[in-house]
Amino acid sequence: MTLHVYLSGEIHTDWREEIANGAEGLPVTFSAPVTDHGASDDCGVAILGAEDDKYWHDHKGAMINAIRTRRGIEEADIVVVRFGDKYKQWNAAFDAGYAAALGKSLIILQPPEHDHALKEVDAAALAVARTPDQVVAVLRYVLNGSLPG
Amino acid sequence: MTLHVYLSGEIHTDWREEIANGAEGLPVTFSAPVTDHGASDDCGVAILGAEDDKYWHDHKGAMINAIRTRRGIEEADIVVVRFGDKYKQWNAAFDAGYAAALGKSLIILQPPEHDHALKEVDAAALAVARTPDQVVAVLRYVLNGSLPG
Amino acid sequence: MTLHVYLSGEIHTDWREEIANGAEGLPVTFSAPVTDHGASDDCGVAILGAEDDKYWHDHKGAMINAIRTRRGIEEADIVVVRFGDKYKQWNAAFDAGYAAALGKSLIILQPPEHDHALKEVDAAALAVARTPDQVVAVLRYVLNGSLPG
Amino acid sequence: MTLHVYLSGEIHTDWREEIANGAEGLPVTFSAPVTDHGASDDCGVAILGAEDDKYWHDHKGAMINAIRTRRGIEEADIVVVRFGDKYKQWNAAFDAGYAAALGKSLIILQPPEHDHALKEVDAAALAVARTPDQVVAVLRYVLNGSLPG
Amino acid sequence: MTLHVYLSGEIHTDWREEIANGAEGLPVTFSAPVTDHGASDDCGVAILGAEDDKYWHDHKGAMINAIRTRRGIEEADIVVVRFGDKYKQWNAAFDAGYAAALGKSLIILQPPEHDHALKEVDAAALAVARTPDQVVAVLRYVLNGSLPG
Amino acid sequence: MTLHVYLSGEIHTDWREEIANGAEGLPVTFSAPVTDHGASDDCGVAILGAEDDKYWHDHKGAMINAIRTRRGIEEADIVVVRFGDKYKQWNAAFDAGYAAALGKSLIILQPPEHDHALKEVDAAALAVARTPDQVVAVLRYVLNGSLPG
Amino acid sequence: MTLHVYLSGEIHTDWREEIANGAEGLPVTFSAPVTDHGASDDCGVAILGAEDDKYWHDHKGAMINAIRTRRGIEEADIVVVRFGDKYKQWNAAFDAGYAAALGKSLIILQPPEHDHALKEVDAAALAVARTPDQVVAVLRYVLNGSLPG
Amino acid sequence: MTLHVYLSGEIHTDWREEIANGAEGLPVTFSAPVTDHGASDDCGVAILGAEDDKYWHDHKGAMINAIRTRRGIEEADIVVVRFGDKYKQWNAAFDAGYAAALGKSLIILQPPEHDHALKEVDAAALAVARTPDQVVAVLRYVLNGSLPG
Repeated sequence: MTLHVYLSGEIHTDWREEIANGAEGLPVTFSAPVTDHGASDDCGVAILGAEDDKYWHDHKGAMINAIRTRRGIEEADIVVVRFGDKYKQWNAAFDAGYAAALGKSLIILQPPEHDHALKEVDAAALAVARTPDQVVAVLRYVLNGSLPG
Repeated sequence: MTLHVYLSGEIHTDWREEIANGAEGLPVTFSAPVTDHGASDDCGVAILGAEDDKYWHDHKGAMINAIRTRRGIEEADIVVVRFGDKYKQWNAAFDAGYAAALGKSLIILQPPEHDHALKEVDAAALAVARTPDQVVAVLRYVLNGSLPG
Repeated sequence: MTLHVYLSGEIHTDWREEIANGAEGLPVTFSAPVTDHGASDDCGVAILGAEDDKYWHDHKGAMINAIRTRRGIEEADIVVVRFGDKYKQWNAAFDAGYAAALGKSLIILQPPEHDHALKEVDAAALAVARTPDQVVAVLRYVLNGSLPG
Repeated sequence: MTLHVYLSGEIHTDWREEIANGAEGLPVTFSAPVTDHGASDDCGVAILGAEDDKYWHDHKGAMINAIRTRRGIEEADIVVVRFGDKYKQWNAAFDAGYAAALGKSLIILQPPEHDHALKEVDAAALAVARTPDQVVAVLRYVLNGSLPG
Repeated sequence: MTLHVYLSGEIHTDWREEIANGAEGLPVTFSAPVTDHGASDDCGVAILGAEDDKYWHDHKGAMINAIRTRRGIEEADIVVVRFGDKYKQWNAAFDAGYAAALGKSLIILQPPEHDHALKEVDAAALAVARTPDQVVAVLRYVLNGSLPG
Repeated sequence: MTLHVYLSGEIHTDWREEIANGAEGLPVTFSAPVTDHGASDDCGVAILGAEDDKYWHDHKGAMINAIRTRRGIEEADIVVVRFGDKYKQWNAAFDAGYAAALGKSLIILQPPEHDHALKEVDAAALAVARTPDQVVAVLRYVLNGSLPG
Repeated sequence: MTLHVYLSGEIHTDWREEIANGAEGLPVTFSAPVTDHGASDDCGVAILGAEDDKYWHDHKGAMINAIRTRRGIEEADIVVVRFGDKYKQWNAAFDAGYAAALGKSLIILQPPEHDHALKEVDAAALAVARTPDQVVAVLRYVLNGSLPG
Repeated sequence: MTLHVYLSGEIHTDWREEIANGAEGLPVTFSAPVTDHGASDDCGVAILGAEDDKYWHDHKGAMINAIRTRRGIEEADIVVVRFGDKYKQWNAAFDAGYAAALGKSLIILQPPEHDHALKEVDAAALAVARTPDQVVAVLRYVLNGSLPG
């Protein structure tokens, strides 16, 4: 058994690297959105031409990013969605809903202070983790049945 | 042609009534989540028994609410998701993602100040409205082709 | 909103009537397997001709019952599965798995002593109830948002 | 033609090894749940943190195990479900129902004394085998058309 | 519970009327192909213009008939396929395969002398009946649980 | 049997009325895009606010029209696509492709001079008609088996 | 581009070998049912135990053969169904219907004398060939655009 | 992440080569229709036999080409549809609709003068490009997040 894992959500800390490092040696492939904030915001106009209106500037970029996001979620067995401390993070919750509707196994990675606000999202998940290490431990257990410690 | 419309998201203003009133006489049926905040939070323990741990208290409620939410979204032709001024509203974004993955026609109702934060959500929508009246106007046009004014 | 509810599982107590009576007046339709144990066991040979071998006797009946069961589950919004005190009840668990794979909202009705043995089944459910009254309360809340008491 | 086979159900005898050994040399890949009973029961709390309530202890584990089970069933061409002599084995029947609803080819491996209790499950299967050797013979025949003896 | 039943296959005896008469009073709706052999053969050219080549003459008719057949099978809960004594009846077997792939409940109505030739078709069915009365008895049992006699 | 028919394509002649009039008395419901060319072009900005850029002006309108188009095609049993003498009519061909991918029964209504250019579209259709009367004749035959004349 | 091709139908001539030989060097993989008539008839009882009743003898075999057939059709891009001169060949027509409902590209290989009897089957096909060489020519053209001669 | 890209539409310029050359070194595989216009028009009769009627001549070819087109679109992650200056190009728009209904990520490559005529097609796309270089830039960004320049 191999696992394809899509790592959605927060892009300002190195949680994706922590998970990838922790999972080294396991038969897991990872994918993720473009995590360069500037490139992600401007890709639409940088590639397809400038827009006067900020709304359409953003829109063109969001559409191109959707090509990658949908591809990543659709080929994934597991979608991990990380909620951090800052920003609205509605795209993270959107990805969680999208993944849930496709029947993907969902793991939410979030600090306890968001428990109440995320209760509907968590209710669709198969695991709610607090640290990247816990996500790695879930992956390891799912793949070979071994528990930490 | 009739339309089933699910009204997701913000529950602290009367936007659902505005839309329902505006759409009176049109062949539209509306459904929505339970909008009594207290009942929505406590339904799990009120029906199925108390929990010591707040996390599971919330979880039991969110699961029961999911029965209604999924039913509403799955039978809908159009899902309207309203983002307001307060709270995290991750459940709203989750519903938007869920509806998008099912191929529902999505209308987002949100103030301009959220445009950037909602750009991924808006990119999956067929209309981004600023007022309940605009949502009504979309429904009326879709049903009988008449424009406002 | 109306709800189609399929009542699967144990056929030796009157829990289906309790739920139907409790839900009187709500916009709910119920369906269920044939609950006459003898008819259910013998329908295959009674209709399509006798079999010497008990295995095929059972098989012919189970196949005809499957017409009703699949129809009931597929048209349901909610599948309630009741586990009682006696018998193997593998058909109940089979129906729960079948419903889960189709994305139906699942409510399990079972006594606490089966919690450990049913943990995988319960993990796929949106509510685990102990009494028929609790199932009715879930249906009422899902439909109109009112809580008991 | 290659076959992906998921081996669900009873975890207290070595039937999975018997099948894997018998199928050596055939283009078959096998997957299965975690068969370490203790790890399977405790994985939730061992990875994601302790629970006071036994119900939620079990629940967290069952949810993580579901990641593996669903992955295994969904990628399988054939799902073999083994019913043994002991325990309720509702998770086995649940897996059978889940696999049936997804249209997987189902093979049930069970002793004759369970024939009547399993008649609904067997009615969804393409083969009912009594021994692991028979399962191997089915796989061999499906792959290269050769019969035993 | 109501049932939509599509009656496919042989068009030279009155078995459809026998079933419809027998099922009078039951909540069943029936649909069927056009059973006027001449009209069925010539509908393509009669409506859309003559063809010199018999192959395309037949083809145009078969395409129009497919509109009705697919509609009938897709909206059906149960597809009954009747094999008679004469002709190749490949369209009947085609309909059976089509219905099976869509997960419809399949009832085959055929005389015993075709058992061997129909074994693959029967293997996909939930009932193999010998007479229209048996089909009626299956429908009655599925709907209200009552057995004949 | 009833039929839901979506009438896509050319909006400058009264072919939809001809079909509707011809089908009077048959159990058919029709839906169609908004056929007021001006309203269809401007609905986006008329409802949701003006755009400086003609591209986004068009885009907003096309998105709202898509709500109606998709609803109409998805609920249809039959999609009739009319190609006329003028304009590019790419939206008509787009609708035909959309309907084909959803497995809808497709009827193309077009003059012979477009046969070569439409060969890929026609290859996905179950009927290619030259006049609205022929479409009516197909609907009548599909519903009650009667041929013209 | 590679193609997976399932070769269904008649098992008494070497048409499968002709196609495989003709397609040598092309990126095509072939699968097929078990073509040993005796093994195919008896596989059920040979593996899973004898039956007194010929009907169940056949049934057990047909069910095991269905594991292979469904796997082959489901993984195929193209399903070729060959109708020969003898036997009822209802399983061939069943496979054609099954493949059509799954949206597979269907090629029918049959002599002209069956044109009328196969018109409904042919109407679901993308090519009707008379010789194995024509099937090879279709595969070659689809893969690299080259025509014969 | 790898991407399968289907390049649909205009076959009279070398835009496919431009994209393939530009994407060299990226983990992308390309497929496309047969771009030899003569072979594409005549493949049906060249392989399966001549037709007197031009309509059926075209039809047989279009059906064989559909085997390739559907295979290409169905295995694609991204479908690029190019509209050029000449011809009706209804097959291009048909492919766009087909791809949209399957949920493929759609990129439209077209000159600005077609903006109004393509507005419904563009509304279903995630990117509208003017040059093959822009398509390459989208692919590169989606795969590794790097922007041009």
